[in-house]
Amino acid sequence: MVNAGDMNGSGNLMDFLDEPFPDVGTYEDFHTIDWLREKSRDTDRHRKITNKSKESIWEFVKSLLDAWSGWVVMLLIGLLAGTLAGVIDLAVDWMTDLKEGVCLSAFWYSHEQCCWTSNETTFDDRDKCPKWQKWSELLVNQSEGASAYILNYFLYIMWALSFAFLAVSLVRVFAPYACGSGIPEIKTILSGFIIRGYLGKWTLLIKTVTLVLVVSSGLSLGKEGPLVHVACCCGNFFSSLFSKYSKNEGKRREVLSAAAAAGVSVAFGAPIGGVLFSLEEVSYYFPLKTLWRSFFAALVAAFTLRSINPFGNSRLVLFYVEYHTPWRRKTTRLGKYPVLEVIVVTAITAIIAYPNPYTRRSTSELISELFNDCGALESSQLCDYINDPNMTRPVDDIPDRPAGFGVYTAMWQLALALIFKIIITIFTFGMKIPSGLFIPSMAVGAMAGRMVGIGVEQLAYHHHDWIIFRNWCRPGADCVTPGLYAMVGAAACLGGVTRMTVSLVVIMFELTGGLEYIVPLMAAAVTSKWVADAFGKEGIYEAHIHLNGYPFLDAKDEFTHRTLATDVMRPRRGEPPLSVLTQDSMTVEDVETLIKETNYNGFPVVVSKDSERLIGFAQRRELILAIKNARQRQDGVVSNSIMYFTEDPPELPANSPHPLKLRRILNLSPFTVTDHTPMETVVDIFRKLGLRQCLVTRSGRLLGIITKKDVLRHMAQMANQDPESIMFN
Amino acid sequence: MVNAGDMNGSGNLMDFLDEPFPDVGTYEDFHTIDWLREKSRDTDRHRKITNKSKESIWEFVKSLLDAWSGWVVMLLIGLLAGTLAGVIDLAVDWMTDLKEGVCLSAFWYSHEQCCWTSNETTFDDRDKCPKWQKWSELLVNQSEGASAYILNYFLYIMWALSFAFLAVSLVRVFAPYACGSGIPEIKTILSGFIIRGYLGKWTLLIKTVTLVLVVSSGLSLGKEGPLVHVACCCGNFFSSLFSKYSKNEGKRREVLSAAAAAGVSVAFGAPIGGVLFSLEEVSYYFPLKTLWRSFFAALVAAFTLRSINPFGNSRLVLFYVEYHTPWRRKTTRLGKYPVLEVIVVTAITAIIAYPNPYTRRSTSELISELFNDCGALESSQLCDYINDPNMTRPVDDIPDRPAGFGVYTAMWQLALALIFKIIITIFTFGMKIPSGLFIPSMAVGAMAGRMVGIGVEQLAYHHHDWIIFRNWCRPGADCVTPGLYAMVGAAACLGGVTRMTVSLVVIMFELTGGLEYIVPLMAAAVTSKWVADAFGKEGIYEAHIHLNGYPFLDAKDEFTHRTLATDVMRPRRGEPPLSVLTQDSMTVEDVETLIKETNYNGFPVVVSKDSERLIGFAQRRELILAIKNARQRQDGVVSNSIMYFTEDPPELPANSPHPLKLRRILNLSPFTVTDHTPMETVVDIFRKLGLRQCLVTRSGRLLGIITKKDVLRHMAQMANQDPESIMFN
Repeated sequence: MVNAGDMNGSGNLMDFLDEPFPDVGTYEDFHTIDWLREKSRDTDRHRKITNKSKESIWEFVKSLLDAWSGWVVMLLIGLLAGTLAGVIDLAVDWMTDLKEGVCLSAFWYSHEQCCWTSNETTFDDRDKCPKWQKWSELLVNQSEGASAYILNYFLYIMWALSFAFLAVSLVRVFAPYACGSGIPEIKTILSGFIIRGYLGKWTLLIKTVTLVLVVSSGLSLGKEGPLVHVACCCGNFFSSLFSKYSKNEGKRREVLSAAAAAGVSVAFGAPIGGVLFSLEEVSYYFPLKTLWRSFFAALVAAFTLRSINPFGNSRLVLFYVEYHTPWRRKTTRLGKYPVLEVIVVTAITAIIAYPNPYTRRSTSELISELFNDCGALESSQLCDYINDPNMTRPVDDIPDRPAGFGVYTAMWQLALALIFKIIITIFTFGMKIPSGLFIPSMAVGAMAGRMVGIGVEQLAYHHHDWIIFRNWCRPGADCVTPGLYAMVGAAACLGGVTRMTVSLVVIMFELTGGLEYIVPLMAAAVTSKWVADAFGKEGIYEAHIHLNGYPFLDAKDEFTHRTLATDVMRPRRGEPPLSVLTQDSMTVEDVETLIKETNYNGFPVVVSKDSERLIGFAQRRELILAIKNARQRQDGVVSNSIMYFTEDPPELPANSPHPLKLRRILNLSPFTVTDHTPMETVVDIFRKLGLRQCLVTRSGRLLGIITKKDVLRHMAQMANQDPESIMFN
Repeated sequence: MVNAGDMNGSGNLMDFLDEPFPDVGTYEDFHTIDWLREKSRDTDRHRKITNKSKESIWEFVKSLLDAWSGWVVMLLIGLLAGTLAGVIDLAVDWMTDLKEGVCLSAFWYSHEQCCWTSNETTFDDRDKCPKWQKWSELLVNQSEGASAYILNYFLYIMWALSFAFLAVSLVRVFAPYACGSGIPEIKTILSGFIIRGYLGKWTLLIKTVTLVLVVSSGLSLGKEGPLVHVACCCGNFFSSLFSKYSKNEGKRREVLSAAAAAGVSVAFGAPIGGVLFSLEEVSYYFPLKTLWRSFFAALVAAFTLRSINPFGNSRLVLFYVEYHTPWRRKTTRLGKYPVLEVIVVTAITAIIAYPNPYTRRSTSELISELFNDCGALESSQLCDYINDPNMTRPVDDIPDRPAGFGVYTAMWQLALALIFKIIITIFTFGMKIPSGLFIPSMAVGAMAGRMVGIGVEQLAYHHHDWIIFRNWCRPGADCVTPGLYAMVGAAACLGGVTRMTVSLVVIMFELTGGLEYIVPLMAAAVTSKWVADAFGKEGIYEAHIHLNGYPFLDAKDEFTHRTLATDVMRPRRGEPPLSVLTQDSMTVEDVETLIKETNYNGFPVVVSKDSERLIGFAQRRELILAIKNARQRQDGVVSNSIMYFTEDPPELPANSPHPLKLRRILNLSPFTVTDHTPMETVVDIFRKLGLRQCLVTRSGRLLGIITKKDVLRHMAQMANQDPESIMFN
């Protein structure tokens, strides 16, 4: 603890003790951290441990444990994130099927597990496994007919409504931060913002439970974004167990970046894609050490998931994105009644979804069917082609065939499903439940792609003399693969929404496993990015961040305007001068008044009001704590005591009260730029060094201050002046 | 051009023209670029083009072309790098076989192409294709016997010597920069160093030709590192065609990063691994835009290569690294006679390699055989197991079997080959020829791994009751795969040499194609990195960079010492004061004397020698050019003219000569830190912002300067004081 002696200006050795005032070094909620300070605090800690480790064997062991704690945290995150994802998968499978029926041999089996021993493996016959009973069979012993259909329909809606109601109530009562996908907030947190409780234990628990409920209820949303949030909560939990991470906001964010990679990894079974996603989309500060550890966490998570749910759909349940359409949130009246909103949207979804086979089943099953190619024996309606009975056909090489009745039925059902999905997805996002957009937007893209694919296939079959088909599509050859069109459509749709590039292609590559598909996927990703960029440069995450006004300085925004630091700094012309402290002439009362009248995060310290030569910077929080401390201790510090930041106390009249020495809270190396520095450089400095504020000087004299908020405000202003950037807003 | 009017101090509008003095903005050879300046120059250029594009349609088209030029350059690099890699592959195949014989149907066919139509496909029978003739068959019509063996042996050595002699002569005479792998130099260039000609057209041409020669000569080296150099030369060539890249050293380096990715991509057929390698190992400044473009270039290159050489060994010829063992270069006397050195090493290699089947064939074929698993019908000596005649065995599921005579022969041949490879590889690297270490170190690891694998396999077969085998290896099961041991050994050896982590695993993953192998590969990569790091933190590239004394500031080195800027800045205590310019009191002659007497890159400009308040920084090069220009133009500027950096000329006595205004060359926003700034922060600033120098101030007064070289020297000093880091040196 702070010794009374070092407050009375005697400049003794205690001044150099490392123990700070209580609470010094922590940040307030909704404040931005100072990356440079966090980094240097970690270096200090590391140096202390290294020095101590030479003293005794126990200290040496402790230093080894400290060095290994990063890997231990990664292992734990991978294990927990993988386990949670596996449990969620299994629970969703079971509860999705529960809406339609129940397994008689064991009620906790899903339809697939229940019929595991059955020999029927095709889609149509799967329903007829005897141990699996639809509700109508169980309750009124009827499996066909209008009354059975209506009973099943009614129970389907009831189950969906109860799941959704339970979910929205849990979120509302226990963990409001569990709603939405969480990716925009995680991006903001990783960039250095503090949102207390966002990654807490309650959020973890409630988000996991409600995610199962909302996905099972059949709402048009995906589980992948929320899984990233869940993994980050795991990361936050484990980092709180190690003082290396819990006490340093910068180090904690390294762990969270790796946790995000683990989350994406379990969401798609794509560890490399997860690491790249974390690098490209989510993270802010991503040193190479984090790359390597993220990869480790992502792999552990993927393998844990696989060992829990080995036959899961992890290779088909793809990715995620989140889609708060701005106009909706602003205009809907239902938004004020979140529970009612969820109930209404769920009811509409269930009522419209049930009759159409492509919306009734789970979205990931739908995507899987759309991606699949038709084999000769495929029983899916989408594969109802008219086979030529004279043709000998190996299973692998089926020529293009004319479409049968089933394909035409499938086409209009898909068209209806597509329209429904687009509309209902817009209404689903932004509700107060965990929700991701990855699966729905892939489904939209896959449906559109499959329909185009079937169209081109039939065109090629019926018109193989057309000039576009003639050169590469001989009659009888298999030259159009509708499944590939679906895959490309899904990639394009996702790319347009998120603006992911490399990570999108790599995730699709990990899912499809062949270098051959990379070219069409890449073409789709590039085209959709260019088209989407023509409407506005922001992806869905950035749009959401701006909508919520988070202080996020995007590494991708290029600042190309010609303004200088002097145009942005405060005070502006005509404003009152900057609030500064002098190094040895202000009293405690002066400072307390200044603190009361302003709400700045800190104050520059200058030699004197006349010379304005800068000597350092003092944080508001630490000033308050230091004064409070000194007053409580009664070291003779009173309201008209002089405060000084120099090494030695100023010469005072004989009867003046005890002065207060504050050098230890003075940051002697504040960041400065000259007033002629281009804002482009200033933006670069803020971005790369993670600053909170920067002082502006000319020839050594303090002129003003630029904070992160000033930079963001200026960037937004300049973007609005620029007619090209205005298109999207 | 510069107008005479703006030199005579009238402060007119011409002062703000953008046209600089000739040569301003270029850098001298072996100097470091200033990233911030390059970036702001590119922004200016971009802004100018955007403004002009509104003037006419032609300007608009030009601005579109400019925006697209990045993609065009990537496409061209991908195409050329892929083509060159394909041609090199084909030429190496042909010339490697030429050492043993020739194809009678067409002399430009390699052994494999010659015997393409032959039905014999196994390793042993492949030799017996009638159209392919060994030299002994062709010259003395004998295929077996001692004299044929000696003749073949002799011709093998002669061909190897002529290839090696030709290669070393070409390098010596035409392009000295073509020797070695080039990766350490490329790393240094990408970090902002200028080495003129290193990526020039002559280097490109000679490196391509000599690479074919040295690989064909059978020396223990790989072609993968040099391929990265070749791809970077392509990148440099194409970027010189577009003024956007040729005139901006920062932008040029973005193109080169992408070219390095394309080089790795063609070296292994691993585009994702290539991008990650460029990110993890080679690049310095890697914005997300470059990630995406690199990926594009890498894909184009991989597909071009595949379409040129579709049956090539691109999935087996793996990676590369370069291994200048320090002790060797310092002690060998042969090093002074590069041609002789190459001849001697080639002769020894050829003489020892020919008798052993595992060293005679090309190293990539060797690796491919070691990685392969033994099928039931495999004719390779390594697969000579004793089969149980009673056992029915499906081709895919062969149980562990006792080793036959061939396997034991293979074991001792492999052991000899392993020893030979390790020794000769050490001597091969550092010779004045293009050389990579990736293939040799993979071969060493694969040989060791395969031998361990066979050992474990036989142990498990003969002792399946041992406790370590009992639980997972039932008799008759296929529980040990020697090929996988070889793969893991290769990864471990490479990882130890290069300290690659994620990119290593991803490249191996792209080569083997299965998520199942990632766990052993990752375990190998982690273990080898930890073991190697215990001996010294530097990978082979960093070691080479330090050996050559390049000014490279590694992003991976962590600086954790407690020194302050004041400990590093010059002038030190007792040294003469810093050479500074004053804003309006020095004459042209004073400045010329200062320039002559010092060799600093630039000089801080202060208000006056007394106040020492900093107003800016002037580059030496630009000072010299400005004075030369002014003197040539005879604007009344003579030796005792006053030079001034202020807006308005100082008040001068009536008869004083014309003053010289130099405000336009003054950098008004030099980077400053206070003397109390921790060096840790200073290192971070240099690294992240790519500075050349930084000024040190206290309360606005200039105290000293820190250059990149000072930072590097200080880091080396501190590392040497630290006993833990000394181990390796």
